Amino acid sequence: MTTRDFQRARSPEAKAVREAAILDAARRLGAERGIREVTLTDIASAVDMHKSAMLRYFETREEIFLRLTAEGWRDWAPDLAERVGAVQQPDADTVAAVVAATLAERGTFCDLLAQTPLNLERNVSVEKVREFKLTTGEGLGRIVPAVRAALPGLTEQDGIDLVAAATSLAGTFHQIATPGPEVAALYRSDPRLSHALVDVEPRLARILGALLRGMMARAGR
Amino acid sequence: MTTRDFQRARSPEAKAVREAAILDAARRLGAERGIREVTLTDIASAVDMHKSAMLRYFETREEIFLRLTAEGWRDWAPDLAERVGAVQQPDADTVAAVVAATLAERGTFCDLLAQTPLNLERNVSVEKVREFKLTTGEGLGRIVPAVRAALPGLTEQDGIDLVAAATSLAGTFHQIATPGPEVAALYRSDPRLSHALVDVEPRLARILGALLRGMMARAGR
Repeated sequence: MTTRDFQRARSPEAKAVREAAILDAARRLGAERGIREVTLTDIASAVDMHKSAMLRYFETREEIFLRLTAEGWRDWAPDLAERVGAVQQPDADTVAAVVAATLAERGTFCDLLAQTPLNLERNVSVEKVREFKLTTGEGLGRIVPAVRAALPGLTEQDGIDLVAAATSLAGTFHQIATPGPEVAALYRSDPRLSHALVDVEPRLARILGALLRGMMARAGR
Repeated sequence: MTTRDFQRARSPEAKAVREAAILDAARRLGAERGIREVTLTDIASAVDMHKSAMLRYFETREEIFLRLTAEGWRDWAPDLAERVGAVQQPDADTVAAVVAATLAERGTFCDLLAQTPLNLERNVSVEKVREFKLTTGEGLGRIVPAVRAALPGLTEQDGIDLVAAATSLAGTFHQIATPGPEVAALYRSDPRLSHALVDVEPRLARILGALLRGMMARAGR
């Protein structure tokens, strides 16, 4: 699509096409470089628009990435709910393994999860934060009942705590696991730094497995 | 201290005094505004130095805050180890409560913990990252034995996982708990957004208590 095609867009349909192109470009650049390295100028140039024209679609860089995070929740939550529902003889470790796998498969979503409270929710309008929080609330509404059906001893609060822990840890562990190349080489070179190396999925599965087991043990279930 | 005093400093002692003044200013500004809002220019002007002069002491803004994070570990780890050691009849919940309390008391440290893998470790030299990781390794060396002495069933890996989970969750929950004022008002105004409100210490204590209980239950202890 050329700059002139974009400039001609007037109808709601054409506007939606442009928005989708902007989100696609941001998603692709974020996956390639990491979210923190992608500027509004990078996105504008990837869709061949002027930055000022792009600001008619999104207020800020953070609004673009917050929209991608919301998309990530709408993709992740039903997939997790379905896969938890399909676990045969579910227990703390098998459910935790599914939660860890569905997050570890989504590296860009993990990157976005870490950026959300630090950056993305701080440079957008209150209305955009409200929309985003409604989306995460809907995600909880899919995940928590599915996890409680698999592990009937869990309370609603346990389910919410599980999702909060899983998303927070996945975001942080993803950042720790994807340092710059020089720092990655440093970690491998010095045995005293081995504690700094993180493999996201097994660590997440191990911690969430213990968390779920402890939630069930607490109530004597 | 004036700009001229700073310019005159030449001896190692004078250099240490200047470094301490820079770190003090960064710590104070970070506590007032949140780390993400503090620029190198803000710190330079708080110590009445030119930015170019300050760069002789610290390579980047991130190096200053990474030093403060290292200080935070050296302050937190022995305090936590001592207070865990003092718990009468320790169990998963009482040990978790101490971990949560020692972190919740240190708001700026929690802020720094969240910034570390996202930002602070990405804009400093490899040598500074190495120094920092050695400090966190020493912190683990204080905390893990203290927690294992209190809860003898835990393995070394459990202790490391506990510290990784505690610091990651404290960092993220602190960010979620300290949104801008407009977003905070939004959360209180809309009951559908109540899941977005986080009280750091009780949530952290609850999750870490379940985590420790699950680690102990896993080994049948």
